[in-house]
Amino acid sequence: MLKFELLQTDPASHARRGRLTLKHGVVETPTFMPVGTYGTVKGVTPQSLQDMGAQIILGNTFHLWMRPGLDVIAQFGGLHQFEKWQQPILTDSGGFQVWSLGAMRKITEQGVHFSSPVNGDKLFMSPEISIQIQTTLNSDIAMQLDECTPYISVETKTKGQITTEAEARNSMELSLRWAKRCQAEFVRLQNPNALFGIVQGGMFEHLRQESLEQLAEMDFPGYAVGGVSVGEPKDEMLRIMAHTPQRLPEHKPRYLMGVGTPEDLVEGVAQGVDMFDCVMPTRNARNGTLFTRYGDLKIRNAQHKTDARPLDETCTCYACAGSPMAMPHGNTGAAWAQGGRAGFSRAYLHHLDRCGEMLGPMLASIHNLHYYLNLMREMRAALDVGSFGAFRQQFKADRARGV
Amino acid sequence: MLKFELLQTDPASHARRGRLTLKHGVVETPTFMPVGTYGTVKGVTPQSLQDMGAQIILGNTFHLWMRPGLDVIAQFGGLHQFEKWQQPILTDSGGFQVWSLGAMRKITEQGVHFSSPVNGDKLFMSPEISIQIQTTLNSDIAMQLDECTPYISVETKTKGQITTEAEARNSMELSLRWAKRCQAEFVRLQNPNALFGIVQGGMFEHLRQESLEQLAEMDFPGYAVGGVSVGEPKDEMLRIMAHTPQRLPEHKPRYLMGVGTPEDLVEGVAQGVDMFDCVMPTRNARNGTLFTRYGDLKIRNAQHKTDARPLDETCTCYACAGSPMAMPHGNTGAAWAQGGRAGFSRAYLHHLDRCGEMLGPMLASIHNLHYYLNLMREMRAALDVGSFGAFRQQFKADRARGV
Repeated sequence: MLKFELLQTDPASHARRGRLTLKHGVVETPTFMPVGTYGTVKGVTPQSLQDMGAQIILGNTFHLWMRPGLDVIAQFGGLHQFEKWQQPILTDSGGFQVWSLGAMRKITEQGVHFSSPVNGDKLFMSPEISIQIQTTLNSDIAMQLDECTPYISVETKTKGQITTEAEARNSMELSLRWAKRCQAEFVRLQNPNALFGIVQGGMFEHLRQESLEQLAEMDFPGYAVGGVSVGEPKDEMLRIMAHTPQRLPEHKPRYLMGVGTPEDLVEGVAQGVDMFDCVMPTRNARNGTLFTRYGDLKIRNAQHKTDARPLDETCTCYACAGSPMAMPHGNTGAAWAQGGRAGFSRAYLHHLDRCGEMLGPMLASIHNLHYYLNLMREMRAALDVGSFGAFRQQFKADRARGV
Repeated sequence: MLKFELLQTDPASHARRGRLTLKHGVVETPTFMPVGTYGTVKGVTPQSLQDMGAQIILGNTFHLWMRPGLDVIAQFGGLHQFEKWQQPILTDSGGFQVWSLGAMRKITEQGVHFSSPVNGDKLFMSPEISIQIQTTLNSDIAMQLDECTPYISVETKTKGQITTEAEARNSMELSLRWAKRCQAEFVRLQNPNALFGIVQGGMFEHLRQESLEQLAEMDFPGYAVGGVSVGEPKDEMLRIMAHTPQRLPEHKPRYLMGVGTPEDLVEGVAQGVDMFDCVMPTRNARNGTLFTRYGDLKIRNAQHKTDARPLDETCTCYACAGSPMAMPHGNTGAAWAQGGRAGFSRAYLHHLDRCGEMLGPMLASIHNLHYYLNLMREMRAALDVGSFGAFRQQFKADRARGV
């Protein structure tokens, strides 16, 4: 099931404010989906994700197929109950991970033969198998299996060369044929959730156009833009972002896969994207790079050693403000209020990082995810009142200010 | 400041129920103090510790002196504000860590000369310096500097031999002289908190007796039993536990340092101990050993792969029950209630461990700390109603049942 309502559109850009209703709940769009590869968004509890306002998270089909395996997840009736996340989940098709195996895999019309990176077993992934796995996972949104057209080829014969138009066309057309097979299998299995088609076509607008037109004819309940953020220069990505999303069916949700920086998210929304996912907030958190309203901050730098300020004085996350999570049920918060702000200092976060303490990446992950989710919240609020243009300007000015 | 009230005593053992009032709050005894070596209890947030009912935590003076250093902590007015823990904190003297440096340190009457394990700097720790550092940390309870008498000598001349009576006496007497110097420095600095003396004497009851009598004359507001859990056989530890705590001044709190297993805690309480600390709950959590009412559980074992049960069906921690932390402010918990219990399964925890996901040790740390804190809560409740003897029997029977 999937219902998508378009609530507002920005007159000065392609930005849209919408509401997506899925089997496990409502998602206000534009939205950001934290990535929970192995059935956990790295470094945070499901409760913490809820507190931050996450409404939908992503799971990686390929990883979950390998570990814990489908037998385990089937026993729990799907991914939600296994990982204790009762709001919507989107799963990818597993195609990108299989494709990323490089020399360990072989793509044919039928599907992809590959060796398990966990135990070396010979395995096979096809459009039908991907849908079968995602049906077991019982994700609210499943993705079609596609071939992710790379910017720079990794194939033996053409390795290191920029993908040609002919290669991009072949790849795009294969993805279209796989889209049909995924759709047929999804129907055959009577999967009650929603299946999205994925636009490919590399860096060629006319191929993207062909892809999206043929997918639109297949009448998917939602569409993704794939094959971006795959190693191409930023201006190439922006060129495709400026082309494809706005041309997708207006009354269906649009998902830009694997993107990106805070700036990419604001630009993506302006170009008509409704959904994003990216590992950047959690991965950067573990590497000590924190996002703030006033630019990015590297907590490992010695300058933070004695800095009593929180990461971002405008941020309301647990790391910065000690709330909303600091004062749960029955706790008056009186103790926390002592000494003013309840947030952790840059000095303390610097110290945790230096000592290799787990609490460092834990707080950093909370902060970065909260930053991303809050950025989407601010964009939605601006779209609600028709001030997205002003928001976009202020966002750029703030981010350029410096921490 | 320190006030200690004795609320109940068990007629059939030396167990006591008490209440300790310190500058930063009230501690119900007997109590367990989670260990926050570097200004963080490993793997948990301060909020989570509060939710679990921790009332006092420990900080390690030596570690905090090395990193972040006293200049940083002084800037925050002490450890509480730096680490955002507003309830009581006890700090050790740093003596045990300095002593543990082995060949890198030299003990004299004046103090201990050693090389910094962080940067090799030549450093010096004395009773006065320990108290000066702990005064900067502003811990609610400071510990005297002592020499921790080992069970097996690590000194060059006697290495590998069981500590002799003469050695234990020399060491105990040095600790007494250091106790006096600590007390004098504590007064000189007008430290407003409380300083505890530490009983030494190795495995010799008559030396322990001498030590505790002389310390009692110095009239400390509380007393610790040190030099146990230092490599001695379990029956040796039990022998000292059966001797020393009950002989300490009745109306002052008694702290058994660095102990121990759940069984040790119950035995310690029966012997008259009021306070414990140990790294075991957090360290074992990171190694995949979980404590439960019905015995210990190794989450890495393959038998847990498909086990849908929580770690401990009687446990109310976030990992086992999804509460109390699962339903904070404004969340009705309706989503969590779907599918019955909101706790995580053994299968999921096994999967997290196998994938090296941070959430594994995070949930395990919450569970183990909650187990320890809850065990103390259950002992206090039993002491309140005069059923400690029955509790002790049931505890042993339950733990022997098996998970």
